[in-house]
Amino acid sequence: MKVSILMGSKSDYPKLEEAVKFLREHGVHVSVRALSAHRTPKQVFEHIENIEREGYDLIIAAAGKAAHLPGVVAAHTLMPVIGVPIKSSTLDGMDALLSIVQMPKGIPVATVAIDGGLNAAILALQIMALKYPQLKEALKKHREDMMKQVLEDDASIQ
Amino acid sequence: MKVSILMGSKSDYPKLEEAVKFLREHGVHVSVRALSAHRTPKQVFEHIENIEREGYDLIIAAAGKAAHLPGVVAAHTLMPVIGVPIKSSTLDGMDALLSIVQMPKGIPVATVAIDGGLNAAILALQIMALKYPQLKEALKKHREDMMKQVLEDDASIQ
Amino acid sequence: MKVSILMGSKSDYPKLEEAVKFLREHGVHVSVRALSAHRTPKQVFEHIENIEREGYDLIIAAAGKAAHLPGVVAAHTLMPVIGVPIKSSTLDGMDALLSIVQMPKGIPVATVAIDGGLNAAILALQIMALKYPQLKEALKKHREDMMKQVLEDDASIQ
Amino acid sequence: MKVSILMGSKSDYPKLEEAVKFLREHGVHVSVRALSAHRTPKQVFEHIENIEREGYDLIIAAAGKAAHLPGVVAAHTLMPVIGVPIKSSTLDGMDALLSIVQMPKGIPVATVAIDGGLNAAILALQIMALKYPQLKEALKKHREDMMKQVLEDDASIQ
Amino acid sequence: MKVSILMGSKSDYPKLEEAVKFLREHGVHVSVRALSAHRTPKQVFEHIENIEREGYDLIIAAAGKAAHLPGVVAAHTLMPVIGVPIKSSTLDGMDALLSIVQMPKGIPVATVAIDGGLNAAILALQIMALKYPQLKEALKKHREDMMKQVLEDDASIQ
Amino acid sequence: MKVSILMGSKSDYPKLEEAVKFLREHGVHVSVRALSAHRTPKQVFEHIENIEREGYDLIIAAAGKAAHLPGVVAAHTLMPVIGVPIKSSTLDGMDALLSIVQMPKGIPVATVAIDGGLNAAILALQIMALKYPQLKEALKKHREDMMKQVLEDDASIQ
Amino acid sequence: MKVSILMGSKSDYPKLEEAVKFLREHGVHVSVRALSAHRTPKQVFEHIENIEREGYDLIIAAAGKAAHLPGVVAAHTLMPVIGVPIKSSTLDGMDALLSIVQMPKGIPVATVAIDGGLNAAILALQIMALKYPQLKEALKKHREDMMKQVLEDDASIQ
Amino acid sequence: MKVSILMGSKSDYPKLEEAVKFLREHGVHVSVRALSAHRTPKQVFEHIENIEREGYDLIIAAAGKAAHLPGVVAAHTLMPVIGVPIKSSTLDGMDALLSIVQMPKGIPVATVAIDGGLNAAILALQIMALKYPQLKEALKKHREDMMKQVLEDDASIQ
Repeated sequence: MKVSILMGSKSDYPKLEEAVKFLREHGVHVSVRALSAHRTPKQVFEHIENIEREGYDLIIAAAGKAAHLPGVVAAHTLMPVIGVPIKSSTLDGMDALLSIVQMPKGIPVATVAIDGGLNAAILALQIMALKYPQLKEALKKHREDMMKQVLEDDASIQ
Repeated sequence: MKVSILMGSKSDYPKLEEAVKFLREHGVHVSVRALSAHRTPKQVFEHIENIEREGYDLIIAAAGKAAHLPGVVAAHTLMPVIGVPIKSSTLDGMDALLSIVQMPKGIPVATVAIDGGLNAAILALQIMALKYPQLKEALKKHREDMMKQVLEDDASIQ
Repeated sequence: MKVSILMGSKSDYPKLEEAVKFLREHGVHVSVRALSAHRTPKQVFEHIENIEREGYDLIIAAAGKAAHLPGVVAAHTLMPVIGVPIKSSTLDGMDALLSIVQMPKGIPVATVAIDGGLNAAILALQIMALKYPQLKEALKKHREDMMKQVLEDDASIQ
Repeated sequence: MKVSILMGSKSDYPKLEEAVKFLREHGVHVSVRALSAHRTPKQVFEHIENIEREGYDLIIAAAGKAAHLPGVVAAHTLMPVIGVPIKSSTLDGMDALLSIVQMPKGIPVATVAIDGGLNAAILALQIMALKYPQLKEALKKHREDMMKQVLEDDASIQ
Repeated sequence: MKVSILMGSKSDYPKLEEAVKFLREHGVHVSVRALSAHRTPKQVFEHIENIEREGYDLIIAAAGKAAHLPGVVAAHTLMPVIGVPIKSSTLDGMDALLSIVQMPKGIPVATVAIDGGLNAAILALQIMALKYPQLKEALKKHREDMMKQVLEDDASIQ
Repeated sequence: MKVSILMGSKSDYPKLEEAVKFLREHGVHVSVRALSAHRTPKQVFEHIENIEREGYDLIIAAAGKAAHLPGVVAAHTLMPVIGVPIKSSTLDGMDALLSIVQMPKGIPVATVAIDGGLNAAILALQIMALKYPQLKEALKKHREDMMKQVLEDDASIQ
Repeated sequence: MKVSILMGSKSDYPKLEEAVKFLREHGVHVSVRALSAHRTPKQVFEHIENIEREGYDLIIAAAGKAAHLPGVVAAHTLMPVIGVPIKSSTLDGMDALLSIVQMPKGIPVATVAIDGGLNAAILALQIMALKYPQLKEALKKHREDMMKQVLEDDASIQ
Repeated sequence: MKVSILMGSKSDYPKLEEAVKFLREHGVHVSVRALSAHRTPKQVFEHIENIEREGYDLIIAAAGKAAHLPGVVAAHTLMPVIGVPIKSSTLDGMDALLSIVQMPKGIPVATVAIDGGLNAAILALQIMALKYPQLKEALKKHREDMMKQVLEDDASIQ
């Protein structure tokens, strides 16, 4: 179980930390890289070639503003690509969301919520569970844990 | 290889036809249902139970306006759920996009472009390719076909 | 006079506190629960069944982001459901507003302003006044109090 | 069971026809008026006084653009006011939606979807069912009919 | 030269203070009132009648959210009404802007920028200058002063 | 009574025709010009100088897209400038609205609704009524006529 | 004088035809290609290498939806890249605009209006005029022609 | 190599400082002026005439709100004009973006991202490189430096 997490800028890291931790806690090997689709396109392409050779299962790509990274990555691989729009200093993340989700016919990006790093990681587990059925148990447990947390919170406000 | 395609209303069907055809052409068994998260919630839940029992691999859920169907489905299964926002008579699909993509922590929906039925189907193949490696070849061929089509179009305008 | 206040997350509570207080001051029995439509759907459905059995009059449901809770609740009851969109860290509450107000044909949610907890409570009183005419007097007094407050404020700036 | 349907302009009528029909079919006495909050404010106020005297239960108010009618009506009555934003030639109904739903503290308007006339009527029945319990049966039947319609549609596409 | 400044809430006052000061410095008699179109409609109408009788020249009306005050005032007078959208805690003032500027046919509101109190005051002088030609000189001087300020600022950064 | 109507392009004319007719019916001398702030700036400035010399009372300026014409005109005159945002082929007039209404401190434009030509003309009469009191009667009559029209429409749908 | 016009899809061609014609009329050698950043990335990169070797002066890149083409091109060349957002079936071109203009630090795209093909061509001439001073005369003449056209239009409506 | 940087207000300076520094470091003579299109139009026009006489190569114009400065400048010169939308206190820079990028046919403005001062400067170098080929080396080096910075950042998070 191997996931590549790519972000367009080192400054996006705090919004992905939870995802890295979640995946590693579930036994996933995670590669974390900060590579720009525009400033380091060659390194992005090399990275994709490397992880394909090394048998990675999917890619999580996060970026802000005119967030091309997820789409550019998706154009260079057949692996599923999960896109995470990052909110930056203007437009509240709407620019990143539209730049990621509105991909043209032929090259989809599986887009999650703005700043939705953790959900990207959960979706990654759900996708990998097709191949690694043992993850289903982990996902089930995670959902039960969330349920318990909600019920504890609920009890605390009643 | 089994995919469930759910739409919130029969009227969404034309926007998913291409997806149904694409999946079937690639040997995927496709169940096509029009069930509303709000008007037929029980049938939605029963359908999810059925397809889980029958070993479906993932779900594509499409809806317009306050498009809850993909999120409601995702809350009732651990399978990956791909969401397709459908443009309706007002707001140009923005309401459906935000209702699908902005899912809260814990329950992701893999969202594609507004009216992006075909991309949902391609993403479904990419996800299933983790489990059915033979799909990789088909995806590769599809991408080459797209490339050829672009190059033919390109030649025609030069 | 019984009102159920449901919120999608414990963190929404501060935006509903004023509503809880207002209703209780007017003699309404208020149940306050934090249950997620996605993480605890069963508990949501059980809660609805319970309050229907216990003769509740209506439900106020608040949620942020892809705010499905009010619509999901409305799909499982015939009681009036008042929806309160909650502003979260991105998009200024627009995602919650559209996810709540743009409900498809058949299942309405009575939507109030973003973060409009108090207005949800006032609307609840107005609706319950159809059944409990004594509330009309209370509503009349509340409106007069508001008027007096405005006039005092007005006097203070002249 | 008496409902007043007010619209800001005669041209809004086609978007409310379904609501009028639905209410009348359920035995509700419906008054239909086209009065402008801005061009005929006095007539609006007189109309509210009249229907209050005549024991109306609630008001459905529809308007487009800077849609003040629902809010202005709500400011002059203690009855519940349901607001219907009407899409006009620009901005896709967003102007009407915000002008209706974003009411300030103290005067709520129960807002439904853009062009959501039928949902306004269903919400009206749900509200009136607090006072006229026989409506519950009708609402239950309506919901079952919707369910059947969805299932028929569903059958037709399988 | 008499201008009525109306605001929907006392809390809008800081955004209008500059306007009050500007008008008074130019010899305009200014009435400053905080009256709500929804919570104190009668007082708004009485105020309009009073200032019409006292020979006021125009009205500046400011409000936030579903900002009906300027439009409601415009519907009750033939004086020019200048509308100032006020930014509140959500939606960045867009709700107030659309609720003020998108007035239907027949009842215009002269809308200025979000939080544009000073510009409302300048526009008021420009309008009153039709009747009080001495204001032209003051406006000319104000524009020259602005020009000088810009040029000083410009010099300071060169 | 003299009003200058300026539009950024000849193609805007149909959206201003009603305004021209309305003003002329009320005895206003109207100059109608199609001059672009960007393609014919000199002619715009000359036109402003001319109408100032000829004693015009105010200017109505209409434009679409990045609608600079009203603001540019306002920067070159002390007369009141009424701005009319024109909807063009994209963005539903939102670009024109923001380009006109969001003027910086010092140079206001009295903005009316998107495609709101007639309201610009009515506002022009309201402004000129400060100087030409006979217009008050005309405005009163116009408002009564609108009221009658609404009441006729109202009667026709009851 | 050589300009490369790239579009993301053959279907964008009608929105660029005017630009092609304008540039050729001004003696510019124009290469017109329809290549997708996502479906034919290699061909895009080869094309850029070719035109750099052949001494092209700049690139005009047009695309719709998540319009990555201009940014991807800009990342692979040091030539100026002019971006043209194309309006597609949803969101009125806003998705393309934000995907093109909101480029991150380091890789600018010179963005023009949605569907602004002709303006891209004029901007191309203005840029090339730095190197080919004879273009200044052509630009001056073009601007005079536009001015004459405006004045003719203006004369026709007076 | 001469670039004129114009901003609509002295307060925009911090958002352009990086651009000034970048251009000067690359040997460009930079004129920095804060002139308003509306409050000091004559000075803007004089400035344009001066820099044209002094052989400037292009203009960077930045402004917020209804940001007319770039378009007004573009209408008075044949030099390329780069527009920088500045985010102000409301609407997150969307008003400035649309006011700059949506220029009508005939007068383009090369628009960069909201608050994108540095990108404007880089684009300026790219454009001037057509005339001053030595800049190509500098641009190449800058891009390599950016690449190195990304790779250092990337290394630091692995």
